Amino acid sequence: MREPTPSLSPVDQALVDGVRTRGRRALAKTITLIESTRADHQQRARAVVAELLPHSGNSIRIGISGSPGAGKSTFIEALGNHLLDAGHRLAVLAVDPSSSISGGSILGDKTRMESLCQREEAFIRPSPSAGSLGGVAEMTREAILVCEAAGFDVIIVETVGVGQSETTVAGMVDVFVLLQLPNAGDDLQAMKKGIVEIADLVVINKADIDPRAAAVARSQMQTAMSMLRPSIAGWRPAVLVLSALQKQGIDAFWAEIERYRTNMTACGEFAARRQRQALDWMWAQIDSGLRRRFHAHPAVRAELEPLSAAVAAGRTTPAAAAQTLLDHLQVR
Amino acid sequence: MREPTPSLSPVDQALVDGVRTRGRRALAKTITLIESTRADHQQRARAVVAELLPHSGNSIRIGISGSPGAGKSTFIEALGNHLLDAGHRLAVLAVDPSSSISGGSILGDKTRMESLCQREEAFIRPSPSAGSLGGVAEMTREAILVCEAAGFDVIIVETVGVGQSETTVAGMVDVFVLLQLPNAGDDLQAMKKGIVEIADLVVINKADIDPRAAAVARSQMQTAMSMLRPSIAGWRPAVLVLSALQKQGIDAFWAEIERYRTNMTACGEFAARRQRQALDWMWAQIDSGLRRRFHAHPAVRAELEPLSAAVAAGRTTPAAAAQTLLDHLQVR
Repeated sequence: MREPTPSLSPVDQALVDGVRTRGRRALAKTITLIESTRADHQQRARAVVAELLPHSGNSIRIGISGSPGAGKSTFIEALGNHLLDAGHRLAVLAVDPSSSISGGSILGDKTRMESLCQREEAFIRPSPSAGSLGGVAEMTREAILVCEAAGFDVIIVETVGVGQSETTVAGMVDVFVLLQLPNAGDDLQAMKKGIVEIADLVVINKADIDPRAAAVARSQMQTAMSMLRPSIAGWRPAVLVLSALQKQGIDAFWAEIERYRTNMTACGEFAARRQRQALDWMWAQIDSGLRRRFHAHPAVRAELEPLSAAVAAGRTTPAAAAQTLLDHLQVR
Repeated sequence: MREPTPSLSPVDQALVDGVRTRGRRALAKTITLIESTRADHQQRARAVVAELLPHSGNSIRIGISGSPGAGKSTFIEALGNHLLDAGHRLAVLAVDPSSSISGGSILGDKTRMESLCQREEAFIRPSPSAGSLGGVAEMTREAILVCEAAGFDVIIVETVGVGQSETTVAGMVDVFVLLQLPNAGDDLQAMKKGIVEIADLVVINKADIDPRAAAVARSQMQTAMSMLRPSIAGWRPAVLVLSALQKQGIDAFWAEIERYRTNMTACGEFAARRQRQALDWMWAQIDSGLRRRFHAHPAVRAELEPLSAAVAAGRTTPAAAAQTLLDHLQVR
């Protein structure tokens, strides 16, 4: 088998050492390397991540999604300060594929999570802004590993929920949390988008504004989850009500996360989920690599468009068109 | 561009001519050829289907799903006799990936749909029993085209709903119908399995047993669909109540199908959906072809298992493992 890890240059070794000794600068530079689109940077990043990999994994990875206005940053700030006070070290990453288009980015605004930004035990990083959701997700996955190697034991991955980003983030975290507003329209949106099916925990935020509405929203969401969410061994998904702004219910939220981790670990599902995620990710990478090679083939480049048009027009069958294109690869 | 259609042997030309002149024996033999796993048969089948392709398409393709006991065969028999009496020609195909495992098959039992089987204007074919859902689906897709070329203007594709078969069938028909029992447990199952999201039309069957329960089920399903089903231009999914056994509501069902077809055709969605389905299918074929080639590569065969184990154990990253495997293909 090939050696997947080339030996490191002194510069990259310094990055690895810096991350391992919890240097913020080395951590930031390593993630910048991961996010670079230059081929030589990507190769270096792969080697650095491979070196750090044995030191990763010792964290709980929490995905947090919710529609704009649900109060994600207020919630993360309140939770973060709670965790830091309890001695945890927190990294907050973001997956926002829209940031490459709009130029904006969640976490990009420096005034958000201001109190967290000022604390040494927290590391906050905006979404990588390059490329597709797949590309952004890949960078975030590797950033998670690097943050873990730097000693962060709670990793939060925030997403704005553009396109398929919830599913993607759910595929890289141990527990996926849906933040909801206490109004009926919000849970309908979540149901329509299929997020209820993948949420491990739902939080009704802003309960201080209208406690009765929050209680109603909770009961509706509980019904929706009992109908829509496939049950997993050892866990019945909970719906919590809290107010991030008033810092009410944050401790109960964290207790629920701890309970989740304990139960999932006890039944083996915690480790099993990470294994499944890693293998799924490997196959996603393989599939996209195979597609890239396919598209790069000269005969495919020449024939894909006319054959697609023929398929769409019903002049040839999908099977015959696929076979014609695949046959070119065989000849090579 | 290559010629995807080799010239036909006299035997295969006879099949084509037989199908075109509505010969049942030629039709059955052509579908048997499509279902064969022998490489030479597959090549012949591809050529025969290519010849028939220009004569296909002139039908409405209806997918029918429902849990066991929902009364699918009774419903199809009642609908079928109604359609034949109105001058239509009906082909009933099945997608049942479990039939290759269990040996059983929907439509396999000759006593089912007995009255339909005896009529010349109906063609009933059990599920192909070879291979994976993808393989079964591929054969059924080609069987649809052949039946259309043989002059059948209504094609029903029945599925028992094993695994992902509903989504697969929804991807090959113009209108996807979900048959439901008039009890609450049944609609919960459909919601959990994500079928409500893809149904174009829902039928509550067996309304004669308990009309009140059927009315309740209808209202619940209407609520569920309004929440879960993304709206499409020109169509608000309907929920009908009927009794296939009593032959009540069959004409209203067919009127609804006709209304669907008219509306979808008028806004261009009927043709657009078929185009999307054909292109999706081409890409599914390409992806599975690329995967087959990948798995067949000697170096991949040697390294896939140890590398997968290393990824699962966290000894290497999914990205690095995928890269290592893909690099072998490049060298070739």
